[in-house]
Order: sequence, then structure tokens, then C-alpha cells
Amino acid sequence: MKCSYCSREAVYYQRYSGKHLCRRHFTSFFEKKVRAVIKKYGMIESGDRIAIALSGGKDSVTLSKLLLELYGGRRDLEFLAITIDEGIEGYRDKTLEVARDVTRSLSIEHYVAKFEDNFGAKLDEMVKVGEKLPCSYCGVFRKYLLNRSARELSATKLATAHNLDDESQTILMNFINADIDRLARLIPQRDQEGLIRRIKPFMELYEKEVVTYGFLKRYPMIFDECPYSYFPVRAFVRDFIYELESKYPGRKISILRSFEKLSNCLRVTNPQIELNRCKICGEPTSKDVCQACKLVGELGKKISVRHNERLVLRKA
Amino acid sequence: MKCSYCSREAVYYQRYSGKHLCRRHFTSFFEKKVRAVIKKYGMIESGDRIAIALSGGKDSVTLSKLLLELYGGRRDLEFLAITIDEGIEGYRDKTLEVARDVTRSLSIEHYVAKFEDNFGAKLDEMVKVGEKLPCSYCGVFRKYLLNRSARELSATKLATAHNLDDESQTILMNFINADIDRLARLIPQRDQEGLIRRIKPFMELYEKEVVTYGFLKRYPMIFDECPYSYFPVRAFVRDFIYELESKYPGRKISILRSFEKLSNCLRVTNPQIELNRCKICGEPTSKDVCQACKLVGELGKKISVRHNERLVLRKA
Repeated sequence: MKCSYCSREAVYYQRYSGKHLCRRHFTSFFEKKVRAVIKKYGMIESGDRIAIALSGGKDSVTLSKLLLELYGGRRDLEFLAITIDEGIEGYRDKTLEVARDVTRSLSIEHYVAKFEDNFGAKLDEMVKVGEKLPCSYCGVFRKYLLNRSARELSATKLATAHNLDDESQTILMNFINADIDRLARLIPQRDQEGLIRRIKPFMELYEKEVVTYGFLKRYPMIFDECPYSYFPVRAFVRDFIYELESKYPGRKISILRSFEKLSNCLRVTNPQIELNRCKICGEPTSKDVCQACKLVGELGKKISVRHNERLVLRKA
Repeated sequence: MKCSYCSREAVYYQRYSGKHLCRRHFTSFFEKKVRAVIKKYGMIESGDRIAIALSGGKDSVTLSKLLLELYGGRRDLEFLAITIDEGIEGYRDKTLEVARDVTRSLSIEHYVAKFEDNFGAKLDEMVKVGEKLPCSYCGVFRKYLLNRSARELSATKLATAHNLDDESQTILMNFINADIDRLARLIPQRDQEGLIRRIKPFMELYEKEVVTYGFLKRYPMIFDECPYSYFPVRAFVRDFIYELESKYPGRKISILRSFEKLSNCLRVTNPQIELNRCKICGEPTSKDVCQACKLVGELGKKISVRHNERLVLRKA
């Protein structure tokens, strides 16, 4: 099949637009789209020091490489990478190695925050005694460490590799669950004390597009899934959206647009609240005690976990 | 299985509440719920003259019987029924007969508005020449006739038998399609000149509950589906919601709640607009020419259709 724009061989078929794209035109489309999304949401501003959440998996590797390729030459910007090491044997070691190679090749600072250093136990140990699903612990502790590390490293933004598939799933899941508060929290927030603003440059790109781009660029791509990954409702919603998209291309985008159209009014009905400081650790939280401290408290009855007053970061 | 409230045999298992209900407790649950919904939305007010959209199918028969049972004794209310006869051979005749039996047994006025009388052609004839899907013609003309008939019969409300299944499908479909305008139109509207306010007393009841209630009450129940019925996207969304509900009971309700939570802000971002009068027929419309007149115009190029100035209603 020929490219819809030139006589070269197409490498990608974009169903929702009906276009076939060659390597050059796909790459150009992808990069333009990322730039456009970044501009649309003011994700990158002059003077920013951007921390990239780099797990070492396919998406975050592609994000790191691309951000540096597109914006690495700008003198008014700085980039660094943060990897969270949850302590998952046979999984994180592999991606951590890739992450190190990537930051070395990009010549950017790279820090690792370990669950073990900061909470006194690996995720592997927590899940053995915890009553909640592994993702409940991992999600809370990972976000905690990402935000705190980014802040203590003086970052102004925290970039994650969430793509359109992730976003449309989260939106639809919250809508179906009538969890409008959580839906509202997806809206880009104004800066809040102690909370580093998150940016998602891939939020309007299909996962397939991110992967295709990474492949074409010969980035190191690890597809391993976390052995603890278990999101039954999300998986159900994901499968529905995939089937919907395959029958009626463009639905992932229209779910995102739906959310955007509702954002204005969500800002009014669910205004961003002033955050408190956690009574225990001082980190920003909407409650009295942050979720991380609550989980530390629960786990602390069974294994030796603690909450370090001082963040422990290692150079990768 | 025994009833969760007494020692009688259960006839219904309500998955989302985990309750088994006997005939008496199911009936009582159902009637209380209908009353509560009517109260919550102020659907029935003293002095109302309520036109019931009675197709003669299972849902609208149950609605007519129940409304008269619950509110028929009230002297400050009046009820009547309107049936639209689209002209669908082998389908509408049967339900029209049932509808007549029902209104006779309830001793309420009953009027029939025919496509043929009012537009000069049956739906059977329209679909032979029309380029759109049958439902596109039927939906527009049926709503037009229901509203105009209700108004000319001095009704103050128009009751339809839409249930929770219908509502959750419509909500999710519009959300997925990013059709926020259409979503906003589902919000109960304030009265508008020429437009009779619609009420949906079954909107928080599962279709299964409506059917079970009708069965237990031995109402005449016709399950025939219209031979033209074809809603591929809706069917896809319906199947998803059914599967979702069967895995995670209560999702149909939570989709409705999600919509309710968003309603306040939708009222702000998508305010109810002042309606115009159609330049051709004078009926309320958001455009210059109403959708019914537009379709009459299109079909008029191929078959003899017209738009009667005077509404033709027959006594059933």
C-alpha cells in the first residue's frame, strides 16, 4: 500500500482518518501531534525543568527520547529522569537497565527512588501481607515518590507517558462508576503548593501510534507487563473501547473530546480544592493524613515498614 | 429461594441490591420506586392532564396501567392516551388492538394519530423511497405527532415508558460520541412554548423490572420488535452495558447518576435555548425549519407526502 501523501510504501494505516502513512509521513505526523498537544495545554514553558517519569517500558522510553529530540536543544529548558523501583523481582531490574541506557544516551540526570529505601520494604514484601490488591499499594507509593522526587529535584513539571488508550479508559471508567470527582481530577490543574504539575504529551496519541513510532526510531522497547497487574474493570472497559474503535474508528478520540467539553463545567462544579499538608509526613493531601501514610500504617502492623522523613534518591 | 423480607417464595432476584423479593415485596418495591421518581422530578403536579404515549407494547401498557392504579383516583389529575400509528404492516395493528383494550379497561380517552393522515404516507411507503434509515423518519415524525397531539388535546405532560436500560444506553452513547448537546437535552427541561414537558416515570427502573411487574400483574404484554428497528451503535452499547451490569451489578444506575451529577454543569454550559417556530408548520424547533418539515421536503420529491396544517386525530 502506498502512502496517502507520497509514493513511498506505507508503514501505518490510520483507521480513523483513512490515511496510509509512510515512515517519513508517520514520523512527521507523530511529532507534529506531540508538539501540538504540548502547545495546546501549555505543557512546556520557558524556564521549565522537566522530570520524566521513566519506568524503562516502551512508552516512557519513547517519551524520553522524543522530548529530548524535540526540545533538548532549547537552552531555556532542562530535563531529568526519575525511575521508581518498586522492588518487583524479575520485572523492574530489566526495565531499569534500559532506563539507564536511555538516560546515558541522552546525557540527562537520572535518579532512582526505591520503595525499599523510602518505605522500608519492597512491593514484593508488601503484597505478601497486604489485604488490598498490589496496584493499590504500588499506585499510591509510586505517585508519592514521583511527586516528592520531582519536587526535591526542583522540577517544575512531571511528564508521564499516558497515551490516548489510557486516558479514554480512565475517563470512561470514572464515568461508568459515577466517580465525577475522579473525573474532574483528570483536568489539567493549576499549580498547587507541593504538587508538581503533571503533563501527558502522548494523551492524544493511540498506544499503537506510540509503539509504531518507537519501533520506527529503533528505540529499545520492552513490552513486559507487571506480574501484579490486575485491573478487572479497566480491562473490561479497555476491551469494549477496542472493539468500539475497531467498528467505529475515532471513538477513543471522541471519548477524550467528550471529557474536554465537560471540563469547563466540571471546573465549576468540582473546583480544585486547597490541599492540606499530611499531619504525618507533610506531603500535600486532600485529607488530614495522606494515602501513603495510611497504607504505611496498615502495613506496619504486619511487616516492618516506615516512612522516611528524608527522601532517599540514588543516582542511576 | 425465600424472599429477603418475609417467608414467601421469591420471584425476583435484584442483583445490584443482593435481595430476593417475593411477589408482594417486588410489587411494593416497584410501585414505591415509581412514586419516588415521580416525586423527585416533580413529574406529576396537581391540575395536570397527562397524555400517555401508548404504543401498546409491554412497557407503555405497564406504564398506563400503573399510572392509573397509582394516581387514577386523584380528582386533580386527568389521564389520556395517544397512540401513533406509523403504518407498519403486521406490527402496529397488533399493538394498537392491545392499546385499545387497555384504555377501554382504564376508561380513559384514547386518540390515534396516523402518519398516513398527517403526512400523506405510511412509514412502509416512506422507507421504500427514503435514503435515511427507517428510524430517522419514524423518530422525527412520531415525536412531532406525539407533541402536537398532546398539546392540541390540552395535555400538560407527556409520559413515555423509557426505562433505565434505555436511559443508560442513550447517556453512554452520547458520551462516547462526544455529543454533549444531545446529552444536555436529556435533562428535564423547563416548560417551553409549544413543547409539552416529557416525563419518564420508569427512568430508574431496569427493563427487567418493568417486564416482571407487568407479568406479575398479568398485563397484556407484547414483546414484538419493530421490523425496521436498526440501531447498530445503540445495540453495541447495549450489549456492553448488559455485560458490564452482569459482572458489576448496579452499573446502569451509576451511569444515570453520573449523568445527574453532570446535569448541573450541563445546564450552565448548554443552557436551554429559546425555541423558534418552524417557518413552514409553526411547530417549535431550534432551527428555522423543523426536522419533520425537512424530511417531508426530502420525501416529497419522490412520493406524495404533505404536511397537514390541521392535525388529524382519530378516537381509538
